[in-house]
Amino acid sequence: MTIWDLDTPSLLIDLDRMEANLDRAADYASKHGLCLRPHTKTHKSPLVAGMQLDRKAVGLTVAKVGEAEVMATDRVPSLLVAYPIWGDTKWERLIEVAKRVPVTVALDSRECAEGIHRYASRAGVEVGILLEADLGMERCGVPPSKHLVALGNAISNLSWLRLDGILFYPGHVSPAVEGSERKMLHLQRDVERLLQRFRRADLPTKIVSGGSTPTLYHSHRVRGMTEIRPGTYVFNDCMQVAAGSCTWHDCAATVMTTVVSVSEGGRAVVDGGSKTFTSDTIGADGDTTYGRVVGMPAARFHRMSEEHGMLDLTACPGPRPRIGQRMRIIPNHVCVTVNMHEMAHGIRGETVERSWPVAARGKIQ
Amino acid sequence: MTIWDLDTPSLLIDLDRMEANLDRAADYASKHGLCLRPHTKTHKSPLVAGMQLDRKAVGLTVAKVGEAEVMATDRVPSLLVAYPIWGDTKWERLIEVAKRVPVTVALDSRECAEGIHRYASRAGVEVGILLEADLGMERCGVPPSKHLVALGNAISNLSWLRLDGILFYPGHVSPAVEGSERKMLHLQRDVERLLQRFRRADLPTKIVSGGSTPTLYHSHRVRGMTEIRPGTYVFNDCMQVAAGSCTWHDCAATVMTTVVSVSEGGRAVVDGGSKTFTSDTIGADGDTTYGRVVGMPAARFHRMSEEHGMLDLTACPGPRPRIGQRMRIIPNHVCVTVNMHEMAHGIRGETVERSWPVAARGKIQ
Repeated sequence: MTIWDLDTPSLLIDLDRMEANLDRAADYASKHGLCLRPHTKTHKSPLVAGMQLDRKAVGLTVAKVGEAEVMATDRVPSLLVAYPIWGDTKWERLIEVAKRVPVTVALDSRECAEGIHRYASRAGVEVGILLEADLGMERCGVPPSKHLVALGNAISNLSWLRLDGILFYPGHVSPAVEGSERKMLHLQRDVERLLQRFRRADLPTKIVSGGSTPTLYHSHRVRGMTEIRPGTYVFNDCMQVAAGSCTWHDCAATVMTTVVSVSEGGRAVVDGGSKTFTSDTIGADGDTTYGRVVGMPAARFHRMSEEHGMLDLTACPGPRPRIGQRMRIIPNHVCVTVNMHEMAHGIRGETVERSWPVAARGKIQ
Repeated sequence: MTIWDLDTPSLLIDLDRMEANLDRAADYASKHGLCLRPHTKTHKSPLVAGMQLDRKAVGLTVAKVGEAEVMATDRVPSLLVAYPIWGDTKWERLIEVAKRVPVTVALDSRECAEGIHRYASRAGVEVGILLEADLGMERCGVPPSKHLVALGNAISNLSWLRLDGILFYPGHVSPAVEGSERKMLHLQRDVERLLQRFRRADLPTKIVSGGSTPTLYHSHRVRGMTEIRPGTYVFNDCMQVAAGSCTWHDCAATVMTTVVSVSEGGRAVVDGGSKTFTSDTIGADGDTTYGRVVGMPAARFHRMSEEHGMLDLTACPGPRPRIGQRMRIIPNHVCVTVNMHEMAHGIRGETVERSWPVAARGKIQ
């Protein structure tokens, strides 16, 4: 089967590029003695997770219990749920997963810890805990303060929880972008101080889990970090290129679309819009784009509605596009784009080598 | 069952509000002698479509063949596929649907028409055609010109296609917004001229299909229009309130979320981000928001990542939010939000009266 046998829009994964991305990160982690625990939010597939485990990933990262359920296969050594899981229904499901695969949860509150502990003790299952520190992302996490130490002490008293260390998400640091070296230096300093604080309080620092795709190849600069959790690196996307963390040649995922309408004025409409790509944008207001057309760098994907992608081709040389012509587009943000597709198609050149379901798609609970 | 028995995030539909929205549009269409053919892209559910048909909708509108397959139930009188369907696979599936339910397709090219005709003639099934005119939306459609008439003449020669008239989408007109009355006047003038042109060329104008939710209650002002295709009106959302086409009390859909993290500084993080709401924004760059928290108008839903929704509550009176607290949020753009959910839960007050699958979710082909 070739890509021409697939209907559109379809999600294509260039296997050569993906494997190169996986190899590169695995080699880097190995060289620097870092544990690699990829975040599966990008590919949402046990099959791709298996390729990561083949390359010595120590386990997998997920955000939701529903994702943990999908990723808890026989071959996964352990799962990190990097999200403060809340509520009886989810705690019960979490413990069911923990009966099959060792589970660690990252959290930032006593309430979450006590809830998980209640269900863990009832089932007689130990759950690992990482305390989430907020080192500048301003999302979840406790700032590195006495409050974080107090939370660590409180959790140490819960017998079915095993405090292993610290987790942070440096999503605010994008080292390759000019001017953000200062943020990287802050991150190094904050991690060092936080570890001192933990050691003084006799709290464990066995696992210090950080890392994102933009910081991936700078992880060795953060002293004390033991584990990295990149997700997007498997496929990469326009945002990663904009952040300087990869090149266009590292982008493994494209959405293959078809031109369904053309206008006199140089507009082409493709059969994928926000229901296919999502509306995550790059660029400032008034100059936003939604993806990059492969082989047509002068094409501007500048407007979309749910089922329509509007390309401005006025700056493109060559013949006018025709109805039925296919266009492959690198998405802005590949994680959310993958989530819009039921299937992914792994290709080499134009050959479809294997297709797989996006099994953890839409697991919002 | 009550809403407290549901886990979060969950999509809730206030049935009283939804029914009022459906009744109001049906009464308006009936009063003005307009055919109501709701676009099912918003609810994506044959069950809700049934409620529209109960209120004398003449049929349904869909965008994709996959949606047509879901909506082609025994009770639907006819389907309009308001999208230029392209390619052998889709044409074949389209004709399979047309064998069960009368189908009309809106298109803007000879290529699309000839492809559909090829499959229609092979199966011996007639397909209705509406020519899509571009009256200012600059998406699909041919501008009202001699080219549109030429396309009409070409299609009239294809024996298994039945040209019924014209379709346009006035998504660029939002009559309640100040200053756009001029656009409405242009629309009236353009439709009138287009109809004259068609009549002079002896082309049919039996169906003149227009209408969107913002223009819904202004449809009677467009002379010659016979059919309206609103979609969003069933649930409404922040965008419709911003466009002045409804009030907060007409918003029937909310996403129920849970606070999973709170900060000293007045930040609350809820368990729904772009994977639950999508990232469709309202507001200019730097002042964007992602939804409205019910009962907390001063809360600002100003940042999100895939699984995190960040609320700034500094301007909110009353006690600080606590972890585990539920927040119901009206989405910016309800059509794409519904598409992120497998189930919708119909409620009256806090009682869950019935739940239904979002059956046409993710039908991108």
